[in-house]
Amino acid sequence: MAEYIEGKRPILEAMRNGMTLSTIFMADNLKQDSLVTDVLRKAKKFDVPVKKVPRKKLDEMSERGSHQGLIAKTQGFPYVNLQEIVDAATKKAEETGSALVILLDHITDAGNLGAIARSAEVVGASGIVIPNKRSAHVTAATYKSSAGAIASMKVAQVANLKQAIDRLKEAGFWVAGASEHAKDTLWKANLKGKMVLVMGNEGEGLARLTQENCDFFVTLPQFGKTASLNVAQASTALMYEWLRQNYDD
Amino acid sequence: MAEYIEGKRPILEAMRNGMTLSTIFMADNLKQDSLVTDVLRKAKKFDVPVKKVPRKKLDEMSERGSHQGLIAKTQGFPYVNLQEIVDAATKKAEETGSALVILLDHITDAGNLGAIARSAEVVGASGIVIPNKRSAHVTAATYKSSAGAIASMKVAQVANLKQAIDRLKEAGFWVAGASEHAKDTLWKANLKGKMVLVMGNEGEGLARLTQENCDFFVTLPQFGKTASLNVAQASTALMYEWLRQNYDD
Repeated sequence: MAEYIEGKRPILEAMRNGMTLSTIFMADNLKQDSLVTDVLRKAKKFDVPVKKVPRKKLDEMSERGSHQGLIAKTQGFPYVNLQEIVDAATKKAEETGSALVILLDHITDAGNLGAIARSAEVVGASGIVIPNKRSAHVTAATYKSSAGAIASMKVAQVANLKQAIDRLKEAGFWVAGASEHAKDTLWKANLKGKMVLVMGNEGEGLARLTQENCDFFVTLPQFGKTASLNVAQASTALMYEWLRQNYDD
Repeated sequence: MAEYIEGKRPILEAMRNGMTLSTIFMADNLKQDSLVTDVLRKAKKFDVPVKKVPRKKLDEMSERGSHQGLIAKTQGFPYVNLQEIVDAATKKAEETGSALVILLDHITDAGNLGAIARSAEVVGASGIVIPNKRSAHVTAATYKSSAGAIASMKVAQVANLKQAIDRLKEAGFWVAGASEHAKDTLWKANLKGKMVLVMGNEGEGLARLTQENCDFFVTLPQFGKTASLNVAQASTALMYEWLRQNYDD
C-alpha cells in the first residue's frame, strides 16, 4: 500500500532510511533551499521522478497540511510470501544449524515493528511474520525506527496466524511464545535449532488461539517496581538468548 | 533544571509518566474542553498549583508556539549523588550477591536515556551514572521513553566519568565496557557479582579515556548486513546477560 510523506525533512529521512519512493510531487513555485537541493540530489541518485504540480494540488493531496511544497508517494513495502521465509530459514538452518523466525501477534505500533526488525536483522533472523489485519504494517515510522534495516528484512503478511504457525511447524520449527505466565525463563528453555519466537500485542500479550499453538513458553524475569519491558526490548533480549544458545565460537 | 512543557496532551502525558510539575500556567480566557478538564483533574490529584495568566504572557513564555493555553513548569529531576548509587548497589550486593550500575559515556539522545532506564529498572539495576556535560539529561522525552520508570531510578550526574569509575572500583565493582572491538562476547565474559556496565555514545562508542578505565570489554555478536543495534537495545541485551549470570532459580 502506497503512503504519502509530506515535507522536506521527512522525505529526506525516508530516502536515507532506504524507503523506495515512486514519485515526488513538487510545488511549481517552490523556492530552492539547501533541503530542497538535498531532496532533488537524492531523488536523482535513487531514480525517483520529480513531478512539478501547482501548489494547490499539493494542498489537496496533503493530509497534515505540512507539505512545505513537497509530497512523496512511496512504493508499497515488498512483502513476501510465508513460503519464502520458510525456505530462507530452512536453508540457513541447513548451513548453520539454526534459524530464527519472528512472529508478531498483533503488534500495533509501527515503530515497535521497526525496532524489532532492527534487532532481528542484527541477529540474523530469516524473517518476520505479521497478520494482515489489526496489526502494524510497514510504514515510514517502521523504516525510521529500524534505521533502515526493514528494507533488508523479509516480512510476510498472513491472513491466519494459526495456519502460519502450522506451516512453520511442518517445516520443523519449534514455536516459543513469550509470556509473563511461562514457568520457564528464557535461559532454561531450549532455544536450539529452528525456532519461531512469538511476541504478543503491546497491551494484551498473546491471543488465546496463538497460545494454544505454541509448543512452549518463555518468560523474561522482571524486577521493576514500576515498569515492564517494551515489546521491542523484550524481543531483543529473547533474540540474543536464541543467539547465545546457537552460537559457535 | 526546570523545563517547560507546552500544550494539553504533552502536559497530560508528562503527568501520566510520573513527571513532577511545579506550576501549570493557564490562559485566563482558556475554553474548557475534555483535555483541559483532564489536566485540571490531574493537577488537583498531584497538588500542582494552576495559575491563571493573560494569554499574551503564555505567548511570551512559549518556545514552540504550541501552548494551546497551557504551559507547565516542571520540577528539575532529583538527581542523586554518586555515593547514593554506590551505597544502594553495595547494599543490594550484600543481600543478593550481585548489583548492576549503568554508566553512560555521553549518550546524547534523551529518548535513549529513557529506554535504557526502563530496562535498567526492570532488571533491578541500582542506578545510572551520566556526565553533566555533552550528555542527554532527564527531560520529558526521557520520562516518555522510560514509560515512567525514570521516576524510580537513581540517576547521578557527575563532572568526571573517570573519577566516578574509580569510586565504583574502590567499592569493589568490575567495570565492563561495551565495545565492538572486544575480543570476548558478552556470554564468555564473567559478569557475576558487582558490575558497572559502560555504554558509549550513539555514534562514536566509548571515549578513549573511558576505555582506558574499563577492566574488560564485551561485544554483542552482530550479523546484520545493514543495521547495528540501537544503544538501548544493546544495553537491554547486556543487562539480561548480567541477570542470567547472576540469577538463582
